[in-house]
Amino acid sequence: MIRAGVVGASGFAGGELIRLITQHPGLELTFLGGSSSAGRRPSELHPGLRDNRGLTVQPVTEDVADRVDVLFLATPAPVSAELSSLFADRVPAIVDLSGAFRIRTPELHDRWYPKVERRSDLADRFVYGVPELIGDRLKDAALISLPGCYATAITLGLAPLTLGLGLRLKTVVVDGKSGSSGGGVQLRTSDLHPFRAGAIAPYSPAGHRHAAEVGDFLERSRPGTIGSLSMSAYGVPNVRGLLTSSYVFTDEEVDRRELNRAYLRFYKGHPFVRVRRHDETLIPVPDPQAVLGSNYADVTVLLDEEGGRIVVLAALDNLVKGAAGQAVQVTNLRFGLPEETGLTQQPVMPA
Amino acid sequence: MIRAGVVGASGFAGGELIRLITQHPGLELTFLGGSSSAGRRPSELHPGLRDNRGLTVQPVTEDVADRVDVLFLATPAPVSAELSSLFADRVPAIVDLSGAFRIRTPELHDRWYPKVERRSDLADRFVYGVPELIGDRLKDAALISLPGCYATAITLGLAPLTLGLGLRLKTVVVDGKSGSSGGGVQLRTSDLHPFRAGAIAPYSPAGHRHAAEVGDFLERSRPGTIGSLSMSAYGVPNVRGLLTSSYVFTDEEVDRRELNRAYLRFYKGHPFVRVRRHDETLIPVPDPQAVLGSNYADVTVLLDEEGGRIVVLAALDNLVKGAAGQAVQVTNLRFGLPEETGLTQQPVMPA
Amino acid sequence: MIRAGVVGASGFAGGELIRLITQHPGLELTFLGGSSSAGRRPSELHPGLRDNRGLTVQPVTEDVADRVDVLFLATPAPVSAELSSLFADRVPAIVDLSGAFRIRTPELHDRWYPKVERRSDLADRFVYGVPELIGDRLKDAALISLPGCYATAITLGLAPLTLGLGLRLKTVVVDGKSGSSGGGVQLRTSDLHPFRAGAIAPYSPAGHRHAAEVGDFLERSRPGTIGSLSMSAYGVPNVRGLLTSSYVFTDEEVDRRELNRAYLRFYKGHPFVRVRRHDETLIPVPDPQAVLGSNYADVTVLLDEEGGRIVVLAALDNLVKGAAGQAVQVTNLRFGLPEETGLTQQPVMPA
Amino acid sequence: MIRAGVVGASGFAGGELIRLITQHPGLELTFLGGSSSAGRRPSELHPGLRDNRGLTVQPVTEDVADRVDVLFLATPAPVSAELSSLFADRVPAIVDLSGAFRIRTPELHDRWYPKVERRSDLADRFVYGVPELIGDRLKDAALISLPGCYATAITLGLAPLTLGLGLRLKTVVVDGKSGSSGGGVQLRTSDLHPFRAGAIAPYSPAGHRHAAEVGDFLERSRPGTIGSLSMSAYGVPNVRGLLTSSYVFTDEEVDRRELNRAYLRFYKGHPFVRVRRHDETLIPVPDPQAVLGSNYADVTVLLDEEGGRIVVLAALDNLVKGAAGQAVQVTNLRFGLPEETGLTQQPVMPA
Repeated sequence: MIRAGVVGASGFAGGELIRLITQHPGLELTFLGGSSSAGRRPSELHPGLRDNRGLTVQPVTEDVADRVDVLFLATPAPVSAELSSLFADRVPAIVDLSGAFRIRTPELHDRWYPKVERRSDLADRFVYGVPELIGDRLKDAALISLPGCYATAITLGLAPLTLGLGLRLKTVVVDGKSGSSGGGVQLRTSDLHPFRAGAIAPYSPAGHRHAAEVGDFLERSRPGTIGSLSMSAYGVPNVRGLLTSSYVFTDEEVDRRELNRAYLRFYKGHPFVRVRRHDETLIPVPDPQAVLGSNYADVTVLLDEEGGRIVVLAALDNLVKGAAGQAVQVTNLRFGLPEETGLTQQPVMPA
Repeated sequence: MIRAGVVGASGFAGGELIRLITQHPGLELTFLGGSSSAGRRPSELHPGLRDNRGLTVQPVTEDVADRVDVLFLATPAPVSAELSSLFADRVPAIVDLSGAFRIRTPELHDRWYPKVERRSDLADRFVYGVPELIGDRLKDAALISLPGCYATAITLGLAPLTLGLGLRLKTVVVDGKSGSSGGGVQLRTSDLHPFRAGAIAPYSPAGHRHAAEVGDFLERSRPGTIGSLSMSAYGVPNVRGLLTSSYVFTDEEVDRRELNRAYLRFYKGHPFVRVRRHDETLIPVPDPQAVLGSNYADVTVLLDEEGGRIVVLAALDNLVKGAAGQAVQVTNLRFGLPEETGLTQQPVMPA
Repeated sequence: MIRAGVVGASGFAGGELIRLITQHPGLELTFLGGSSSAGRRPSELHPGLRDNRGLTVQPVTEDVADRVDVLFLATPAPVSAELSSLFADRVPAIVDLSGAFRIRTPELHDRWYPKVERRSDLADRFVYGVPELIGDRLKDAALISLPGCYATAITLGLAPLTLGLGLRLKTVVVDGKSGSSGGGVQLRTSDLHPFRAGAIAPYSPAGHRHAAEVGDFLERSRPGTIGSLSMSAYGVPNVRGLLTSSYVFTDEEVDRRELNRAYLRFYKGHPFVRVRRHDETLIPVPDPQAVLGSNYADVTVLLDEEGGRIVVLAALDNLVKGAAGQAVQVTNLRFGLPEETGLTQQPVMPA
Repeated sequence: MIRAGVVGASGFAGGELIRLITQHPGLELTFLGGSSSAGRRPSELHPGLRDNRGLTVQPVTEDVADRVDVLFLATPAPVSAELSSLFADRVPAIVDLSGAFRIRTPELHDRWYPKVERRSDLADRFVYGVPELIGDRLKDAALISLPGCYATAITLGLAPLTLGLGLRLKTVVVDGKSGSSGGGVQLRTSDLHPFRAGAIAPYSPAGHRHAAEVGDFLERSRPGTIGSLSMSAYGVPNVRGLLTSSYVFTDEEVDRRELNRAYLRFYKGHPFVRVRRHDETLIPVPDPQAVLGSNYADVTVLLDEEGGRIVVLAALDNLVKGAAGQAVQVTNLRFGLPEETGLTQQPVMPA
């Protein structure tokens, strides 16, 4: 059994990690870390969970290193930066769910994470990327930085165009729509139920750091493929799930039929990415409700000939494929387990 | 009192017309028309309403012309086309809420409304447009075609750029997010609560006829201002309200400070359009929940310098400013009443 | 114009008072009071509202008495107690929306409001009760204590049985279901959208002070009619609205046909109470969605012969008939205006 | 591998059975039956699901018996009655999720299922009951009738009182609150999203057949323990999950402390029933959101001394513990598998 520790146990991603580790046949939960919730049992913090072998949340101390093989950091970026530094050479694997080590280009990092000092020694050692695109590099990775929830969806949507077809995307306009769990367990008036239940909230209307993260990664992966990439993000009344719409303008020739085939080919052998036709079920897809609770990302590509653009839609559960599930997925790859281990749960729908 | 008839009394827009006419000091409901719901009282069809002077829904016959000064057609486009033809010279005013007479350019009409035969004689007599932009032309209009709900929001958002500042918009990408009442009272599996309550549904992901309507109108109003205009539309778990995001690329110089001022200037004296700063309340605006039940349209403009684009957001209640409220507003203007008569209801929020 | 002041302007009831006063032809908003939100404009606190003649929230000082004819206290009970004491003989009318003066029986008051010291001199001067039942007593009332939102619904439901038919109700079991706005604008983790959007939350499963309030009032109104009255309350995912179900056991003979007639008779001439048959619309009623934004209370009575009980259902908008609307209604009655003045807004549905 | 067939594959319970069988290590899906959806793949009908080994929905014919070891009937009661008759002696096990064989007392059956002719020969062979209470009888059962979703919750809530403590419950008033998935995939106007999203709908306000089912079972299990048992049922805006509140009046002495202990004792060794204290997490429990997607039933008991009653609350996922999950649970018991096999999925919360 691989021993797993979770720091940030009181948050949504932390709770989801506990849920998925509990369901995982090869992972064993051996440590729960946190500060404000120290002393609490998981079931107090996450009303759906059963307690797990008597574990309570504990302050993080150095000796935690002796108790875990993999340490999941579901913590704010500054805390992740600090803990990564502390444990980098003391545990076999760290999986960081924060933004601390996502952006590689120093100026971009400083621009979007001004409060997280960049430690270049450490930063360069972190492997970053959606596992479907960097699987091989995870095999022996000691430090893994997980993409953001939106970034995972956008990247999975655009990669077949840039890395698969080699297209140069002149202009990409991303519109992201997310449920409220993406905001974490924080007491903000605007996140109270009366203000959020009926909202279509333009909370980040002109720019989002996940777009910077995507551009940084895709450009490094294949320079010259991304022109301008802008993003706006909206809160909608869902709790879980997000949908990203990427409106892509390119000067290159694109064939409608070929497009979908290219996506199918690109994700062949990747069980968590489902390339779906828009009208293949009784509801239009991709729709995050159709992946709820699961590690699937559903991706659909359409050619809007009149609009002169490619429309790429990607839906995922922000707490699973966008966070805890993807964390378990990279852990499987890191430790040589089959990629789907512990992640075979099917979507809970309708919900 | 101006005598008002409503055809299509069983639908959402029909019900909303009854509600607003009931609250209006200068309008009197004298006819309710419909076929499938003939014989029903309003309160049976619209559980919130009280019955209105014993009226029940009746089949539409020619003599209805004797009983109304204004006839509201909250009917499907083909029915509106037929009834408009029947009553065009028999009643002082027809206000059509359908798409039958919205698009002026014949090829565009045929493209987006293939099932609605264009009657050019009649079509040319209809006045079309958001009342804030064509107020003068409504004074003696006998035939009025009301813009679509999305089209109203997009047009109100873009007009200050093209008609106010005279900018040429090279590329406009519109992302529309709408509640479920926009779909009408129709029995579709995908509109059942279990499938819609958790949806972020890309129901019209690559093109929408309201975009054609907007382009047609803005280009006619000031030729050469609209380059490409594409649109995608999504269903979110709200019931009422819609938000349109217009991502605008222009080659012309735009000054951040001037932008907001231009909008304020453009809508000065128009009580139903509120130009709002994004952060002026405890929730981000514009958000359709902040206009619910009212005839307001909230508009916000932002410059995304890094993204090289202007972001225009517009929120309205699709059944009020997007349909029945705007219908009453044009009726006020048509009959010389103050524009706000009967439309002073403030937004019901939180709801 | 009657000059109106609102204290507690930042809360939901405060915002609703501002909305309704703005729509009211005989009321003029002249003062907004509050402490934590001092200096704020209404539109900052209530995103749907327009600002009203430049008013901002101000600390409450004695001289406010010179500026208002009626002072609405939308404040916590202890604050209401204090302000009532301060302004009792200085303003023509105080309408208190809190629980400070609702329960008359001293022991009951102390039991359910242990933190609100009872001032018997003041308490005895307050008129309490649902206006439909105590209309006459409001004509010259200087101090008015408004029933709680649940209490209004339960009382309207039971009064035709006890006060109308004179039945003795041996056992009444009340089950209350409410939207989240009933909890006020308070930062509680359990009221964050992710925890409340999918909840059926037994927040007060074994007892509620509104039941004590109802029993106290009905027993005083007609002694001996209420045996045991217990209540449980639940939070459901709505934002506005509540439904109370009163399951009534009585040893007296009850005739099914007579029951509904008795309710119609009892509320004849009371425009805000709608006695409705359960199946009279396309959705089952009463349902709070069918009164949203309006001052209606919908009441339905059924005889469950097999269960040996009477089922009384009452639905209202907790912020309107359950708070601000009822406050305006009693103000109309207090100042001799027609009862419906400013309250003719019809329900906004669907929403 | 146990071969499983599902008839009624297009409904919510059918879809949930496919989901759970797919996740089950000992069950293999070998047949999907249905009429209106014949020819469809599961993923077309249930947007979240992957297809399962190429299966499509097929009409039910006699030879299906050769392909299954257990046949799940997620069909309307009349269809279940017919198919049970057809397959009763042809397959090792039938699990019927409908109401066809739930009520044993003939008059009661005819009263609540007037359209389902009672076949006494067959009816007497069906084993009925919540598995926690009749586990032993399932070991060799060939015909199993699953309790209704509400009935499961109510029975789990009351059994510790009647079967555990041997109390006689003089009066039980049940209030049930349910999400919309309980209504099935049927095109009813009142189930369209606009009418259901804001509803607190008294759809069955004075009587419900699940109450008859509970009374019938508990009385047969221990005669004389149930006096009167009445029920009302409400639709709330959730999609999944239900909560039952049983307000219990008894003339016998009850000790507050003992009550909770009695429940813990009664369900010891039953992993799917969690006896929870009302305040043990950051939200009040039991709340169906805390069991979503899982086979748990959460039960809480409280003594309302002032109200003179016991309050029993039970929450479950109507599609899992209330239908498909319980069906798998009885199948495990029937075929000698550990009770939790394939049902270890933890609740997905928040969702």
